[in-house]
Amino acid sequence: MLAFETALAAAEAEEGLIDSGAAAVIAAALDTFEPDMDRLRAGVARDGVVVPELVRQLRVAVGEPHASRVHFGATSQDVIDTSLAIRLKDAIDIIDARLDAVVEQLGGLEARDGAIETMAHTRMQAAIPVSASRKIASWREPLERHRERLGAVRDDVCVLHFGGAVGTLEKLGDAAPAVTRRLAEKLGLRALSRARHSERDGIVAFASWLSLVTGSLGKMGQDVALMAQSEVGEVKLSSGGGSSAMPHKVNPVGAETLVALARFNATLVAGMHHAMVHENERSGAAWTMEWLTLPQMVVATASALRTADQLVSSTTFQPHGT
Amino acid sequence: MLAFETALAAAEAEEGLIDSGAAAVIAAALDTFEPDMDRLRAGVARDGVVVPELVRQLRVAVGEPHASRVHFGATSQDVIDTSLAIRLKDAIDIIDARLDAVVEQLGGLEARDGAIETMAHTRMQAAIPVSASRKIASWREPLERHRERLGAVRDDVCVLHFGGAVGTLEKLGDAAPAVTRRLAEKLGLRALSRARHSERDGIVAFASWLSLVTGSLGKMGQDVALMAQSEVGEVKLSSGGGSSAMPHKVNPVGAETLVALARFNATLVAGMHHAMVHENERSGAAWTMEWLTLPQMVVATASALRTADQLVSSTTFQPHGT
Amino acid sequence: MLAFETALAAAEAEEGLIDSGAAAVIAAALDTFEPDMDRLRAGVARDGVVVPELVRQLRVAVGEPHASRVHFGATSQDVIDTSLAIRLKDAIDIIDARLDAVVEQLGGLEARDGAIETMAHTRMQAAIPVSASRKIASWREPLERHRERLGAVRDDVCVLHFGGAVGTLEKLGDAAPAVTRRLAEKLGLRALSRARHSERDGIVAFASWLSLVTGSLGKMGQDVALMAQSEVGEVKLSSGGGSSAMPHKVNPVGAETLVALARFNATLVAGMHHAMVHENERSGAAWTMEWLTLPQMVVATASALRTADQLVSSTTFQPHGT
Amino acid sequence: MLAFETALAAAEAEEGLIDSGAAAVIAAALDTFEPDMDRLRAGVARDGVVVPELVRQLRVAVGEPHASRVHFGATSQDVIDTSLAIRLKDAIDIIDARLDAVVEQLGGLEARDGAIETMAHTRMQAAIPVSASRKIASWREPLERHRERLGAVRDDVCVLHFGGAVGTLEKLGDAAPAVTRRLAEKLGLRALSRARHSERDGIVAFASWLSLVTGSLGKMGQDVALMAQSEVGEVKLSSGGGSSAMPHKVNPVGAETLVALARFNATLVAGMHHAMVHENERSGAAWTMEWLTLPQMVVATASALRTADQLVSSTTFQPHGT
Repeated sequence: MLAFETALAAAEAEEGLIDSGAAAVIAAALDTFEPDMDRLRAGVARDGVVVPELVRQLRVAVGEPHASRVHFGATSQDVIDTSLAIRLKDAIDIIDARLDAVVEQLGGLEARDGAIETMAHTRMQAAIPVSASRKIASWREPLERHRERLGAVRDDVCVLHFGGAVGTLEKLGDAAPAVTRRLAEKLGLRALSRARHSERDGIVAFASWLSLVTGSLGKMGQDVALMAQSEVGEVKLSSGGGSSAMPHKVNPVGAETLVALARFNATLVAGMHHAMVHENERSGAAWTMEWLTLPQMVVATASALRTADQLVSSTTFQPHGT
Repeated sequence: MLAFETALAAAEAEEGLIDSGAAAVIAAALDTFEPDMDRLRAGVARDGVVVPELVRQLRVAVGEPHASRVHFGATSQDVIDTSLAIRLKDAIDIIDARLDAVVEQLGGLEARDGAIETMAHTRMQAAIPVSASRKIASWREPLERHRERLGAVRDDVCVLHFGGAVGTLEKLGDAAPAVTRRLAEKLGLRALSRARHSERDGIVAFASWLSLVTGSLGKMGQDVALMAQSEVGEVKLSSGGGSSAMPHKVNPVGAETLVALARFNATLVAGMHHAMVHENERSGAAWTMEWLTLPQMVVATASALRTADQLVSSTTFQPHGT
Repeated sequence: MLAFETALAAAEAEEGLIDSGAAAVIAAALDTFEPDMDRLRAGVARDGVVVPELVRQLRVAVGEPHASRVHFGATSQDVIDTSLAIRLKDAIDIIDARLDAVVEQLGGLEARDGAIETMAHTRMQAAIPVSASRKIASWREPLERHRERLGAVRDDVCVLHFGGAVGTLEKLGDAAPAVTRRLAEKLGLRALSRARHSERDGIVAFASWLSLVTGSLGKMGQDVALMAQSEVGEVKLSSGGGSSAMPHKVNPVGAETLVALARFNATLVAGMHHAMVHENERSGAAWTMEWLTLPQMVVATASALRTADQLVSSTTFQPHGT
Repeated sequence: MLAFETALAAAEAEEGLIDSGAAAVIAAALDTFEPDMDRLRAGVARDGVVVPELVRQLRVAVGEPHASRVHFGATSQDVIDTSLAIRLKDAIDIIDARLDAVVEQLGGLEARDGAIETMAHTRMQAAIPVSASRKIASWREPLERHRERLGAVRDDVCVLHFGGAVGTLEKLGDAAPAVTRRLAEKLGLRALSRARHSERDGIVAFASWLSLVTGSLGKMGQDVALMAQSEVGEVKLSSGGGSSAMPHKVNPVGAETLVALARFNATLVAGMHHAMVHENERSGAAWTMEWLTLPQMVVATASALRTADQLVSSTTFQPHGT
């Protein structure tokens, strides 16, 4: 949020909307700003969003005569949605790198164990044998497709949200497009021709993508848990969970976790889709729903990818019938 | 399903896997085939899928000596998933055309009413006035983005599913790739290098897209219902629903329907994401979940688009404060 | 709906609100009434609910001078919600009887196979042996609890909905309580002291109960599918689904169906809970959501119970290790 | 968890299963036990549940010769599910008290403003006037019904979970029922005749109840947000949220929060219902899903009740048309 406010002041100064001295003072003040967290918390409870109280504190920190230049022409949603975009950009990089790692791990598993014959199962019954490589490919290829899908999703998400009170940047006059371009560039985000405050399709497409990723990992987890059953033994796990009552057990904890996270995201994705029904220019209700939902979907996805990486590295196919 | 079986026989004959006479007899028999629906119904109850009984009936219809050439090398899922792809191809064309129609209607509304000043509302409170064109753009542009997203989704869905019992086309030997290519071409679908029986990301990406479309339409419906309130009157509806108890009312039925269909798809999309957790080479449970869920999502989306078309054509912006 | 309108006229005549001759003519006319279905369909599209057009047709059928006495003091929601209650009453009886049947089947299974030792599995791994009776009890006892829960749920659902335009029965004056009591009695429903048009907790508690029932059955289905795996063989199914590609297979189709129906209802129950957010005295959007959702939950539950009955009757426990 | 382990040792000592000296040493050691949180965290990652590592640490703390008497005959799920029950018992008391408070607040609002005439709205359109008391009753009475429903739900939840490795308490022999009774009494929970490790209906019925409560509050919030609209003004809020861009606004933040929390729980409740499909004697996947889901539902409900309390106390009905 501070990055947004600092960059906004700089962009507005460059376009002559505010004094360049004001931008310098704002940059300096925000650089060392320490928020009063208790008041921020009270502000959220009162205003339903942190920005009014944060801006108040920032203006105190900046002091006169430039206080009013902080947040000039912007609205709460600009700050919240853009700061989310900044954080999601980093989160997407982490997720992307973990996707790469799992794809690579699966490539290694296929190279090592792909020739082993394993029993295919349809409708929970043994069918006919296939090579392990066929099975591993059915785990890896969806992840490769998710990587391809990520480009469009990233473009939807890593955008500058900047519209002012009702999406028209009415306080910036003719300078609005230029300030928008400069602000986007400073923040490393894509500029849009109009703010999309009430158009949530980009963020919901991203949430859907997250759940596609965990869904594919959950399928792999389900397969591993089934193949690692005591009676089946198609795969062996080099590490697994212990039991407090039955020390002889090796539980496929990572595999189960992937199933749980897939179903968790599959549940939450519905909430994001409901949040598209966004009243008028800004819906407090729908927006709050996103805040409650999206962060845990991001964390669940990144966590599932790390779990998958560990699971694949601990999995060895066993020759069928041994 | 009959189109699949006919084209399969033709493709296999062209590649020398079955006799060309067999393919001709199969084509003729299936062209006039009349299923015994009661037995098909009983077959679904018994087998969990219609194909075993359908193939049995088809083989009776084809008769000896070619009966065994029907469905050669294929499995139930090839028939079900491919016939779904054939139908979804048509459904997507309808949805695509309706998307175009709504976008065009919104263009017309903007051309006619765009200059009217209307009150923007944030968090359910009047904010400051904006032009109707700003509002209409917030309805139209997400639909335009959905049209752009449709290309990738269509590619995911309009594919040939052909893998045989466990996805390896093991009965077709070296001819498998060539038969696949021919079969895909005959059916107007895209050929894949491997069957994706247990990889449901394509169909779930499609379901997510459907819910994105209805979500954006639901947002428009919510806006219209709010603006058409008796006390607000920012828009006027030339047609609306009547009441059995209060004849003076004009209810914004179309707008409410859009909200209902958005929330309906937002609910169902979770089921599709859950169905990605697909056990092994084929999950009866997850696959059945898709059958229960996806068709109604497709219908809800097509219906929402038609409703939106009618709603937009009956909507007139009223100068604010009149 | 006709039962409601007929009983309403009779109750109102008994309380002197309408002429007893009017009630007799209404009863006679509705007894032989044949709706114009095309116009009803058009009415739903226009009004968002069938009642205005239905009442129009009923009034034509009744003719003058009593036409206006049809539906006197009532509103669309009274008719829709009460006719739903009438149908749910019967549906609940069917579901209740099927619950009894499954509980009894499980009792029989326990009596026959309960002493067989079977392997318990925790976290998808063999643990230590238990008796089959322990396992069967874990399937039966939740169903017994659902039967106990049904009493309160039935009381919530089998109620008369009667409030007039905005829930106050303002056209009935002081006779409102007496008409309500008589109407409820005639329809075999419970009278409420006030209409609950916008209070959807009763119907949503019922939907939650339905999903609890299918959830417990889905757990049993999941267990059976796992125990019937080729490699496990703890249970044997006397009948199962065939495969079009692998004639040797016996697929646990009923067990998978139970899992699918459990997850289907678990998905839909969210939609019912969302529909509790019901705007003001009547929400077209939330109400339509219920119509799209609840009927299929009822059917899914009744179907799951029938499937469970068949599944249990075809299941035999196998001595562990045989 | 420590309360469980301490009470378990005491109950087992009283029944002569372990030495009474062991129970005394365990009680003393656990009373001052300080867990190694880093190792607990690593334990969860490895075992999928905290108990094996916790028990290991507890045994070290107890030391020889009594170490092995810690957790004797119990399993991880006994500890986790019972400690959840202990915490839910307190949480339910808080929720119950808050329900009372909101019901009382609504009683006060009705006493003060009930005679004010307000406009009823059906399908988002003004209908006819009703008294505010009718509206307030439609908010209060569902909460009263939820209080009545709470009795059965509390009985489902506040139970002792104690079954040992696979639910049979096989290590306790004939003393199992007596230990169970003593343990339940010490912990203030209800004893069951058999453990319900894999029977999740009680906890899911509770989750459904939580979502019923927030659903009813969300309906009230939606009503208040609609009535407080600038153009409607049927209610006035003495406090509301401020805006960073439009200082003139009073946003109905509490009302919007109630809608958001209702839809949040309506989304999550699906996840709990999915978690009923619990494999065999213990499902790591389904159990983990509960851990991810239920706690936030409890918090959301308690938070919604507090928000509702504040909202009602800040709401004043305005005479219609003023």
